[in-house]
Parts: sequence; structure tokens; C-alpha cells
Amino acid sequence: MADPSVAGVTQQRTPDTSPVTVVGLGPMGAALAEALLANGNPTTVWNRTAGKADRLVARGARRAASAAEAVAASPVTIVCVADYPAMHAVLEPASGALAGRTVVNLSSGTPEQARDAVAWAEQRGARYLDGVIMVPPEAIGRPDTVLFYSGQSACYDAHRATLDVLGGAAQYLGDDPGLAVLYNTALLGLMYATINGFLHAAALVGSAGVASAALARIAGDWFVPSVVLPLCAGVTGQIDSGDFPGDAGDLRAHLTVIDHIVRTSRDQGMATDVPGALRDLVERAIAEGYGDKGYASLVELIRTPAG
Amino acid sequence: MADPSVAGVTQQRTPDTSPVTVVGLGPMGAALAEALLANGNPTTVWNRTAGKADRLVARGARRAASAAEAVAASPVTIVCVADYPAMHAVLEPASGALAGRTVVNLSSGTPEQARDAVAWAEQRGARYLDGVIMVPPEAIGRPDTVLFYSGQSACYDAHRATLDVLGGAAQYLGDDPGLAVLYNTALLGLMYATINGFLHAAALVGSAGVASAALARIAGDWFVPSVVLPLCAGVTGQIDSGDFPGDAGDLRAHLTVIDHIVRTSRDQGMATDVPGALRDLVERAIAEGYGDKGYASLVELIRTPAG
Repeated sequence: MADPSVAGVTQQRTPDTSPVTVVGLGPMGAALAEALLANGNPTTVWNRTAGKADRLVARGARRAASAAEAVAASPVTIVCVADYPAMHAVLEPASGALAGRTVVNLSSGTPEQARDAVAWAEQRGARYLDGVIMVPPEAIGRPDTVLFYSGQSACYDAHRATLDVLGGAAQYLGDDPGLAVLYNTALLGLMYATINGFLHAAALVGSAGVASAALARIAGDWFVPSVVLPLCAGVTGQIDSGDFPGDAGDLRAHLTVIDHIVRTSRDQGMATDVPGALRDLVERAIAEGYGDKGYASLVELIRTPAG
Repeated sequence: MADPSVAGVTQQRTPDTSPVTVVGLGPMGAALAEALLANGNPTTVWNRTAGKADRLVARGARRAASAAEAVAASPVTIVCVADYPAMHAVLEPASGALAGRTVVNLSSGTPEQARDAVAWAEQRGARYLDGVIMVPPEAIGRPDTVLFYSGQSACYDAHRATLDVLGGAAQYLGDDPGLAVLYNTALLGLMYATINGFLHAAALVGSAGVASAALARIAGDWFVPSVVLPLCAGVTGQIDSGDFPGDAGDLRAHLTVIDHIVRTSRDQGMATDVPGALRDLVERAIAEGYGDKGYASLVELIRTPAG
């Protein structure tokens, strides 16, 4: 967590000393509370298992006796529990204290659950902002840490200084409260796809005795940043317009390469479940008439599967 | 291709003026020949369809009347054709000219084909270096362009100055001549996995009306370089040692997240072929006893599928 110099930078940027409540003190919730304490915000904490607050209380946090007392202690309550049902279970007994206050929910869930939570909060007279954390607890409190928020912009603006204490490079994604969890899901999907691609690549070069650290250097220092990510950025116009020119290599040409990857992997005795599923998807796209379109046309099949 | 300033930089670094032959003048072969011409190397060219040499001859290249004449014209012949069978078909009639010369093959293929090509070249008294190009033709000739080579290190060292003209950031991968095409296949697999993950993520945020350019900025400027690639680099020790501690999140916890991605995608009416195949692979890993191991343990199933 925040060493003094980092906390100092945060404090300079955001001289916020509003009282804040943190509910849910797992590793991530505890890191949020610690960042607030380091910044000098009067911090009230509550956790279903009270003992989890001990270390924070020793550092200056105030321990609430109940969720209602915790919510009542501050204009903003930050909730960091397992999921939306857990958030509702924790805050429902505190309903009477919610009126006129703001809930910032950093728990995991679906866009629909985030949208429903706005109505739930409104019924109790509370403002509601949704957010997600995609960094490990040790990154909380740093000026360059990215956290995502979505929902009422007035609510985000009103508490921006407090939110900046948690991560100084916050991104507000838009009015739809479901956006933060939707981005979260989309980026996690990209993460697993990429890591799985890396594991497959590591197994391939490993079949010739190459250490995966050598692959990681080439992939991380050069190939992904300099070749792959620009390719992704380069097709966004196609994705958003639905026009996929195939002149820089059409789907049929890409199928030849993907099929080569699958066959080489099988020749090395490797599993081909995931690249095989990708090849099948490309074959289906060609069968549906995308053969002379660019690679990004695959997004049309992902958006709207046949049948 | 190389503007004069870039060619100037290349020439300063590598004052190479050896005669070079380029066989195969598709867009990539032509770019190779142009880089050599720009650097001042006497360049002989040959292509099965002779007309493809016209533009290069106008820029100072010498047109050979046959593949044998082309090979005989220079100590090094760079071959850039569709695949290994095409390389053999082109060079077989030039067998008599190969003795004492070097073939640098930049065509696509399998590790086995690359290894076989060494024996083929040795039988004809030639040295052989294998290489791959993973950049578009317009990147050829730049000082920061990465090309991969593998095979006899003496052969690589002897022609390093010439190879630097083609791409100044060449990487020699090792003695095994199959390494360059194996890295190529592995990195292409990583590329398709990542781009497909991006297309899936774009479809997900697109379901809420978000432009994919916004996703590309977050993914490209922050998430992939700052979160995903360090995760890949961080598990290389596990991949290479076969020891996968699950204390930072075990495979069961990851399955919950991956299942959430698949279900959210299906809720949006999207295809889930590829993330579904990944989920099935993780489920199989758990069934085979990896449930309390770290995510990278999946590489064990990829290396050696159950059977």
C-alpha cells in the first residue's frame, strides 16, 4: 500500500478531508480504508466480521457498531463486498440512514444489477454511483491507479476529490450505471483471452525447450504493444461502422494461418480447444458470406450468432 | 518504405554493401529488395513472374534470367515465397549454384520444414539460416523493425550486417533452425487470441452503445500494457517450473469470473464459442485436480491434453 511519498502526492492533488465510510473489509476494502486514512479522511469502517477492522482501528479508523451507524457517520459510504446481493444484505438494515447520503458500490455484478441498484437507492432517498476496481489491493491509493465509475455525473463530480484518493486516474464512463461493470466484464474477457493465448504460445515454444520468460519479453516488450494493440485500435472504425474491407488480408487468408496454428499445436501433442473454437468460428463466418471481408468482420458473428 | 532519413540511419549503423540476391518479389520480397537498394547493396532479383521485378530494376536492381543466375550473383540469397515447398521448387533448379553460398529463408512453414531445409541445403554445400517476418512490408528497412532468425549462429553472425538492413532490431533466437517459425506460430496464436478477445469485448460494450474506439483506448493505453502483460510475465516462473501456487486466486475462483463473462455475453445475445471453450477447458482442469492451483496451471492441460 501507499508509501508516504505516494500518499503525499495524492494529498497534494486532492486536498479532500470529507468523512468517508467503508463497508466490507476484505483485502480490497481494507486497502480503500487505508488509502483514506493515509490521506487524512476521517474514516469509519464496518465489516460483518468485526475483527477485520482491528488493524484499521489501530491506524485511526472509527469502528461502527452496525451498518446503520456506519452509513450515518459519513456523507459517502463506499461498499466493497462480494456482489450485489451481499451489498443489499448489508445495506438493507441501514435503510433508515441512507436518505440524503451517497452509496458508491465497488462490488462485482451485471449491468442489470447496477441499474436496479439505482432504483433501490432512490427508493431510500440515496444517491448511487457504481464503480469497479481492476487493480490489486496494493495499487489502491496511488495517483496513477485507474478505477472506473458510471452513473449520475453529478454524483461523480460531487465526490470526485474523495474518489481520487482511492485511485488518482479515475475514469468516468458515462450516465448508464451499468457501464462500469460492463467494461469490467469486457476487459476481464480480454484479459483471459490474452493470458490463454500467452499460455498456448508458451506451450508451443516450450515444446522446443524455450523458456516462457523469453517469450514474455518478446510478447510484452514488442509484439503485443507494437503489433497487436495497434491492430485492435486500427479496426475500431470498422467495428463501429460495420464496414469490413478485406484488402489487407481477408478472412479466408486468416483461416489459413489460424488452421496452421491449430495443426502445428496438434503436431506438438497439445490441446487445441480454444484455438480450435476460434477456427470453427472463422469457418462459420466464411460459410455465412464473410470470406472476403476483413478479420474484424468476425465481430458480426460474435454480436449476433447465427440461428 | 524507408524514407531517406530512415535509410540514412540504417546505413550509418550497418555500412554493409555486400551483393545480395532476393528471390520472390511479392509485396514483402519487393520491400526487402527496396531496403537493400536504399542501403546501397548491389541487389539481384528474380521472380517466377518476371514482370514483378520491373519497378525494382528501375530503381537499380539487376534482373537475373533464372533462379540459378540469381543465386550465383551474390554470396547470400534471401528467399521470400509462399512456403517451403515453393522455396524448394524455386531453388532446386539452382542447386548447382548453391555450393559455398548462404540461403536465408523468410518463407512460412513448420519447425520440421525448417529443420529439413538445413539438411537439404547441406547436401548442396550451402549454409542455411531460417527467419520470419511479422511486420507489414512498410516496416521493412527501419532501424527499429524486429525480424526473427534461428539456425547456425556462425551463419547469422557472418551476415548480421546485411540482415540489419532489412530490420535493424533483428533477434537471433537460437541454434534450432525451427525456432523462428515456432515463435512465429506462437506469437500469431497470441495475436489471434488477443484480437478475438478484443472483438468480444467490443461487442460487449457495444451492447450498451459504447464505441469500440473508447474500449481500444482503455485497453491499449492502460489495461493490456499495465495489467495483462505484467500478469503474463509474472507467471513465467510457474510455467517453466511446473509449480502453480493458487494463493493469489485459484482456478475455481477464476472459473467463477469466466463463467460470469460467458453468462453476461449470452444475456446480451452474443456468441460465446471462444470464451465458452475457455470455460470448458478450465472446468476440465478443475476436474483433473487443478482447482486449487493458480491460473497458469492451465498450461499443463494445453501442453498435455487428457486422453
